Amino acid sequence: MHPIYLDYNATTPVDPGVLEAMLPYLREEFGNPFSAHALGRRAHEAVERARADVAALLGAHPDEIVFTSGGTEASNIAIRGAAAAEPARSAIVTTAIEHPATTACCDLLRAVGHRVTEVRPQPDGTVEPDDVAAAISTRTALVTIIHAQNEIGTIQPVRAIAGVARERGALVHADAAQSAGKIAFTVDELGVDLMSIAGHKLYAPKGVGALYIRRGVTLPGLLRGAGQEAGRRPGTENVAGIVALGEACRIAALHLEKGTHATAQLASMMVDRLRDQVPGLTVVGENAPRLPNTLNVLFPHASGRKLLAACPRVLASTGSACHADSEAPSAIQIALGLPPERALGAVRLTLGRSTTAQDIEAASSSLAAAWRIVREYAPASAS
Amino acid sequence: MHPIYLDYNATTPVDPGVLEAMLPYLREEFGNPFSAHALGRRAHEAVERARADVAALLGAHPDEIVFTSGGTEASNIAIRGAAAAEPARSAIVTTAIEHPATTACCDLLRAVGHRVTEVRPQPDGTVEPDDVAAAISTRTALVTIIHAQNEIGTIQPVRAIAGVARERGALVHADAAQSAGKIAFTVDELGVDLMSIAGHKLYAPKGVGALYIRRGVTLPGLLRGAGQEAGRRPGTENVAGIVALGEACRIAALHLEKGTHATAQLASMMVDRLRDQVPGLTVVGENAPRLPNTLNVLFPHASGRKLLAACPRVLASTGSACHADSEAPSAIQIALGLPPERALGAVRLTLGRSTTAQDIEAASSSLAAAWRIVREYAPASAS
Repeated sequence: MHPIYLDYNATTPVDPGVLEAMLPYLREEFGNPFSAHALGRRAHEAVERARADVAALLGAHPDEIVFTSGGTEASNIAIRGAAAAEPARSAIVTTAIEHPATTACCDLLRAVGHRVTEVRPQPDGTVEPDDVAAAISTRTALVTIIHAQNEIGTIQPVRAIAGVARERGALVHADAAQSAGKIAFTVDELGVDLMSIAGHKLYAPKGVGALYIRRGVTLPGLLRGAGQEAGRRPGTENVAGIVALGEACRIAALHLEKGTHATAQLASMMVDRLRDQVPGLTVVGENAPRLPNTLNVLFPHASGRKLLAACPRVLASTGSACHADSEAPSAIQIALGLPPERALGAVRLTLGRSTTAQDIEAASSSLAAAWRIVREYAPASAS
Repeated sequence: MHPIYLDYNATTPVDPGVLEAMLPYLREEFGNPFSAHALGRRAHEAVERARADVAALLGAHPDEIVFTSGGTEASNIAIRGAAAAEPARSAIVTTAIEHPATTACCDLLRAVGHRVTEVRPQPDGTVEPDDVAAAISTRTALVTIIHAQNEIGTIQPVRAIAGVARERGALVHADAAQSAGKIAFTVDELGVDLMSIAGHKLYAPKGVGALYIRRGVTLPGLLRGAGQEAGRRPGTENVAGIVALGEACRIAALHLEKGTHATAQLASMMVDRLRDQVPGLTVVGENAPRLPNTLNVLFPHASGRKLLAACPRVLASTGSACHADSEAPSAIQIALGLPPERALGAVRLTLGRSTTAQDIEAASSSLAAAWRIVREYAPASAS
């Protein structure tokens, strides 16, 4: 029995077409884009082609794209840069359901004197635009919000929030690491000034990402060095990774409509199969706008961690912070107001391009069988 | 006529064995090292094996190695971190012949109030340990020095400098991006606390590097996010790039002695051939300790940039900062006290593992022929 990978939100495999596109840059086309000779120029041109492909997926101009080492670095440049961009504005508005990169940047800013307001979500896993609006003032430098929540998949009302933020002169950053390539949108539709994406969430390799910076927005930058990326992100370009990200964005754009529909059908099938076999199973944010590929399910009277340990065939995650032998419920689930003992039953099942109906049938049965085993130990697991 | 690549200090190709080692992590072994399941664990183990290989090349412990996106990021973490590590110490000592990553970090620190002392080199391209010692006080937080200078290849007396720095309680950072894998050394022999290396200088791909942090040294870190790299460098690990860097270090260690000797012979041959054909040609730092692969030669009465433009067969660099149609002499050459008109004649020829005696013969003849053409325009080029 081959393992069934349902952890695409942790990382996707590299698309074979993406690998094909990047291989020349790991072989004969190894030039440094900074070099003036022919080999360097070709590397530079490859980076620029990739920049156009990334921009196209996001509906941006190529000169608005800065390549980074991943989503974390992109969010660091965006959030910490925006906080420092205008001295008269220093307040930050964010939410209680952000990725750790955003949360940690906000913690750092708070520690150095910025006022950070963390808006709490509704129980369905989305924030209310009015709640965010109430937190934005004319002293707000930045509103930073996750577009699609990585653990539960809920899509946040970025457009409505961005409208209010802009009226009050604040910049808006969206962490789109999980949404880019999974659902259709453009930076203009969302109305954001800054957007982070990560290669390994959309079938490019780990170690590359990009930050969209709207024309006219100037950030101080984070790293210091030579003049790569128009001085906005120094360091020799990860040419092969950048080429891969460009190709991944190109493929994602082609795939978007059909892939989204197929994935949503499989996810719906998975919920049905699990409900048939696990009475009392619930889906977090079931009625909220959600990524088509993301299911965060709560198994009743069970520890999600023990359930997955009893079900090695299914490769998925709990979304909880596991430290050695202890287990803590996910901070996101707690933010939604779930009691810890229910939150510990969470399992995140995230589908991808290679997921099949057979995978869903088999994974559902395996998970249900594991649940029947571990549920007997429920009192201990909820301690 | 195939092009002859003599720009290995700009970037090396990826070693075929390195590519072979990384490919599984771009194909089936695509797990996120943070994931608890089998696929994630195998990715985690691959990262840890690579960490041991990097550590072995540097004579370090694996837990002293932090993976980064490259040398620039490593130097940013080291220099800016060390400057912030101990409040009672805020002065920085560096040299006038550093890589832009170091220079730019020092500029930033100076702008926020740190005292930065830039020690000038001797005309041979090395700094005098006594000059550096004179700059180090008990208020010095960090001495940051390039181990082997990237443009001219001179090896700096890091060990002697580190001895003085340590007596006075300062940390020592060496930028070893150009020396690692080219000459043999360990962190203990050099006596440094921090060391930056870059994958694309030693036959791994661009976009990965590492920072050595001596046990007991604690830096605040630069990026904020989740807990990767023991909290010292968040962001999903560039698994394939890290595996590549590990394998590149393993291969470099095997290659070191024999490769160094062969490269030194070819470099010596190149100087002979060029001198035979270009009267008045000089080698920068000729009698100083130098990397075996690096020749920075000054063509008399000529612009190095025009010379290379007239010699497309040889892929090399000038080391000068080229801005559109103007040209400025290299800051490094100027720091050595060379008059600008001579500095403009510089061409950096850097050899690598694939360089052959035939390459050297052919490149020398091509460069000399190009020199005979462009030298006629010398008065204009020196304007």
